[in-house]
Amino acid sequence: MASTIPALSSTAASEVQSRLDRKTKPTGSLGRLEELAVSLAAMSGKVDGVFARKVVLVAAGDHGVARQGVSLYPPEVTPQMVLNFLSGGAAINVLARRAGARVVVADAGVNSEALPKHPGLLNFSAGRGTADFSQGPAMSKALAQTCVDNGRAALRILAAEGLDLLALGEMGIGNTSASSALCACLLGLDVEAVTGRGTGLDAEARQRKVEVLRKALKLNAPDPADPLDCLAKVGGFEIGLLAGAMLEAASHRIPVVLDGFITGAAALVACRMDPALKGFLLASHQGREPGHRLVLEHLGLRAYLNLDLRLGEGSGAALFLPLVDVTHSLLAEMATFESAGVSDKA
Amino acid sequence: MASTIPALSSTAASEVQSRLDRKTKPTGSLGRLEELAVSLAAMSGKVDGVFARKVVLVAAGDHGVARQGVSLYPPEVTPQMVLNFLSGGAAINVLARRAGARVVVADAGVNSEALPKHPGLLNFSAGRGTADFSQGPAMSKALAQTCVDNGRAALRILAAEGLDLLALGEMGIGNTSASSALCACLLGLDVEAVTGRGTGLDAEARQRKVEVLRKALKLNAPDPADPLDCLAKVGGFEIGLLAGAMLEAASHRIPVVLDGFITGAAALVACRMDPALKGFLLASHQGREPGHRLVLEHLGLRAYLNLDLRLGEGSGAALFLPLVDVTHSLLAEMATFESAGVSDKA
Repeated sequence: MASTIPALSSTAASEVQSRLDRKTKPTGSLGRLEELAVSLAAMSGKVDGVFARKVVLVAAGDHGVARQGVSLYPPEVTPQMVLNFLSGGAAINVLARRAGARVVVADAGVNSEALPKHPGLLNFSAGRGTADFSQGPAMSKALAQTCVDNGRAALRILAAEGLDLLALGEMGIGNTSASSALCACLLGLDVEAVTGRGTGLDAEARQRKVEVLRKALKLNAPDPADPLDCLAKVGGFEIGLLAGAMLEAASHRIPVVLDGFITGAAALVACRMDPALKGFLLASHQGREPGHRLVLEHLGLRAYLNLDLRLGEGSGAALFLPLVDVTHSLLAEMATFESAGVSDKA
Repeated sequence: MASTIPALSSTAASEVQSRLDRKTKPTGSLGRLEELAVSLAAMSGKVDGVFARKVVLVAAGDHGVARQGVSLYPPEVTPQMVLNFLSGGAAINVLARRAGARVVVADAGVNSEALPKHPGLLNFSAGRGTADFSQGPAMSKALAQTCVDNGRAALRILAAEGLDLLALGEMGIGNTSASSALCACLLGLDVEAVTGRGTGLDAEARQRKVEVLRKALKLNAPDPADPLDCLAKVGGFEIGLLAGAMLEAASHRIPVVLDGFITGAAALVACRMDPALKGFLLASHQGREPGHRLVLEHLGLRAYLNLDLRLGEGSGAALFLPLVDVTHSLLAEMATFESAGVSDKA
């Protein structure tokens, strides 16, 4: 399929850089904030730096492999946390409120029959959790494609409501395992290099996780040249939905803010589907999972925050969002050398 | 002189950590935000995480050594930027407004006869700039002590008005030179290792700066065991004022947020005067000056932000301040495992 993602706007990027260069500060001295302002202009084509309508899209899904003891928490925590997101008590709710962003949860396939109707919940369930990929594929290739399509559909709903900036998050007990398996496969690395302690495994439990993933990759033999095959065999419903949502956002020129390792794995899958996506991605933070650093390096992204987060939910993305508004304020409110009567360098 | 700085509160720190541990998130998963919440409690003795009254104290001073071509900008930029701070058009004004902090400028010794009376300007001038330390001491030891005392007095004014958190910034053409000289002396390092490009010198100009500083240290021979002697011989008025302000803040249990290399050099001087200060310092960001990293390492501080800033003014400190309010919101608003009915780890 031909790419639906437009080219970056070099005109908007240059305009913003030249506005920054006239402000009362040494050239480039605002470092990565200037880089961010310019990137946002290139992505959106907008030069005013206004990205008022922000959504943190939290995709939730369950994982059959969670039964293999790869997580510190029991699988029922996935639907419990979805309810916590909907009632506003999770970290992501607090952080999104502070950032002036709306939290929207997408049920990509949570193992629950009881999720309520709620204005902040989009129902795109592909089933009550994936199959256990230590025993066979997580899902069929057709279902993997459905998850990606669901992500595109979710984004179109958000875009129709009005969306300037998309931040991504996720919830799914077992999803660092799926992400490690995807990264090992798509980056051609040993599972050992891309597997971490998740939400807090000890060294021994992490080693068991490595063994489960190693066997799963051998059993399923996903094709590294086929991202959809990888997603189907060792991925997850919420990972597929995230991949689709970011591809669709980029096609609308909506900048995409990644969170941690899981959204990074989804970005890896999505960029293999359409490499033009890369230009529309921002890495909010670098977490503790070793695979996260490798994914960011591979995608050519540099994180803005290093706060040792290992929560997920979109927490790092939400913490990053205020920097976007900062770039707007700098563009809109700072004096120029001329207006302030300050001598520029010789 | 005996330390006036109280002990850190381990009671408040434990109370905040145990509140965080009951929140619906894996233990410790908010990483450095949790560390920040706990540090703020230990410093202030407060467990509610409310640090509403924030000031960015920007100390400004001129430097005789600026005549030696060690900066990209002419010395008249110091008073020009002070006026820009007072009229609200500088980066620090924009960033402080976004953080809900007040900007207060302290004239520690700017070369101007024309600074206006202004509610945001404290007059603690020690003179119209230091002497050129490439020709002899920057100031007398008595004057260096006056600068430190001025910083204490400035802080007492702010504390009397009501102050929960102090962020520090500075303005002074030539002050990375003074900071490099101070760090070389106090850390026992060669000037080469602690000298950077300031606001944007090229490699050749930086090398000239290194030579000027090397000769100045040889000529003045500051005593590394005597921080006041170092401050007098190769320091600056604003650096002395910053050192005094942070010592006094700590004695009031007011947490101190450092900015870049210059506030770091001031912290180095101040911690040599009273090592108990260290426990009250927070490193907002790590900038591009090589000496900044060395100072932070020496003080045992780890920066929260890495945004490649090289502006000064308190810009990194102001960008950090919203994280303080984030820790409060997390403590106040997040659900607990019990209240949200979420299963904790087995």
